[in-house]
Amino acid sequence: MRRSERIVRLTQTLLEQPYRLLSLTEMAEKLGSAKSSLSEDLAIIRDVLLKEGTGSLETQAGAAGGVRYIPGIPSRQMTDFVAEMCRLLADPDRILPGGYLYISDILGRPDVLDRAGRIFAHVFSGAGAEYVLTVETKGIPLAVSTARYLHVPTVVVRRDHRVTEGSAVSINYVSGSRRIQTMSLSRRSLPEHSKVLIIDDFMKAGGTAKAMTDMMKEFKAEVVGVGVFMSTSEPVPKLLDDYVALTVLSQVDELTREIHVVPGNFQLARKENSDG
Amino acid sequence: MRRSERIVRLTQTLLEQPYRLLSLTEMAEKLGSAKSSLSEDLAIIRDVLLKEGTGSLETQAGAAGGVRYIPGIPSRQMTDFVAEMCRLLADPDRILPGGYLYISDILGRPDVLDRAGRIFAHVFSGAGAEYVLTVETKGIPLAVSTARYLHVPTVVVRRDHRVTEGSAVSINYVSGSRRIQTMSLSRRSLPEHSKVLIIDDFMKAGGTAKAMTDMMKEFKAEVVGVGVFMSTSEPVPKLLDDYVALTVLSQVDELTREIHVVPGNFQLARKENSDG
Repeated sequence: MRRSERIVRLTQTLLEQPYRLLSLTEMAEKLGSAKSSLSEDLAIIRDVLLKEGTGSLETQAGAAGGVRYIPGIPSRQMTDFVAEMCRLLADPDRILPGGYLYISDILGRPDVLDRAGRIFAHVFSGAGAEYVLTVETKGIPLAVSTARYLHVPTVVVRRDHRVTEGSAVSINYVSGSRRIQTMSLSRRSLPEHSKVLIIDDFMKAGGTAKAMTDMMKEFKAEVVGVGVFMSTSEPVPKLLDDYVALTVLSQVDELTREIHVVPGNFQLARKENSDG
Repeated sequence: MRRSERIVRLTQTLLEQPYRLLSLTEMAEKLGSAKSSLSEDLAIIRDVLLKEGTGSLETQAGAAGGVRYIPGIPSRQMTDFVAEMCRLLADPDRILPGGYLYISDILGRPDVLDRAGRIFAHVFSGAGAEYVLTVETKGIPLAVSTARYLHVPTVVVRRDHRVTEGSAVSINYVSGSRRIQTMSLSRRSLPEHSKVLIIDDFMKAGGTAKAMTDMMKEFKAEVVGVGVFMSTSEPVPKLLDDYVALTVLSQVDELTREIHVVPGNFQLARKENSDG
């Protein structure tokens, strides 16, 4: 097989399986090539990813060794994407009765989901999340997209307890609209002592995210991060102080039809790696 | 830039944006290479995709011309995946009180979502879907994954009418459990005369899928396909006769703890292309 063909196959195999450790021995066999050629190919792919800022390849030595693709995103692409989101979100046609903002269309777009998921995966890449947790409904696509780039399962907390999920833990909490709400999570959906990353579409007072955090105590799980697509500047403080927001809604005025949306703290948030 | 580097960048650009038409002129500029070299690179990528059965490149000539990546999946990979799903689903530990089957864990796994989404995108690749439609909650991850490979937005029908989505169309229907249920969809979430592909996790009598189809009439939309992860062999006939199922549940016995799950009709379903 020619090098260029091998490189297409390798690039495809790696990109389609983020974070998955791929055995060098198996790959060499599958491609019918020497491990040394494979290493050269991987070096080329690694160089391009690093140069572009779109990720990195992590190599593990030894018998069980292999290589995995860690997705990244260039800082410039993050800021451009978030700026574009702020612009879209500030469209006065999005104002709904009661001062709500219509954002379901944006959170259904495949390019937005892909980019936002990639940003969260990048921001939380050092956090060691084993699951992405969200609550139905609007946060699910974002959670799935993030989980895809982290190569971990998505777990969905329900607003009601469905018979089709077996025994569950239920908790009550007070939502942003000051109503008492219930959320429940099937016992078997999350092993005890898991590390979870919470992803949601929107955070106002933080009641829902706080409730998910409380719920995690029932599962002896550790919350390693909280990421939201949009938070609001008010109220301060929120029930949760450590979270990452892509955008911040500072004003919606039903009368003047003015909306202000600014970039969130996603660029300050990255703690472990700083090559982004 | 060396050919091998160019090929990595091209492969990445194409694979990360299924179905998106990418301009040859822009790509040549970005890579700093002649269009003729680019065409040679694309030919190499096309050959590998075809040889592997993992997709194809579609070239459009002319000033607005370009190239797009159409994801595919080899027949063998489809049957292996579905066989593996049948095996997993038949685990007696999945039986819940009432004869329900616990499948949320499977539908949260990133590899399952990716593969199932890819299969649906492949099966319905000729259908011209402009949106993927699902109903909350369990079908959403599958719908998002399919929509990613078709590069179209996901639209989620709600079980209740939420204040944050504006005016909506609501309909009542009878679900598989014979209860009267409501579903509603925000007016602005779908333009009239759209072509939609319905994706859901589970179909028994077909009441929910039929209701979504009825709902689409209110939006003057055309349903170009229905795909479910699992259907049941009973009842026959269902309220909907044209659907694609990856797996079919033929028996759950709470007493003997026997479950039978067999592959569905996904391989007969593909009408337009037959290169898979």
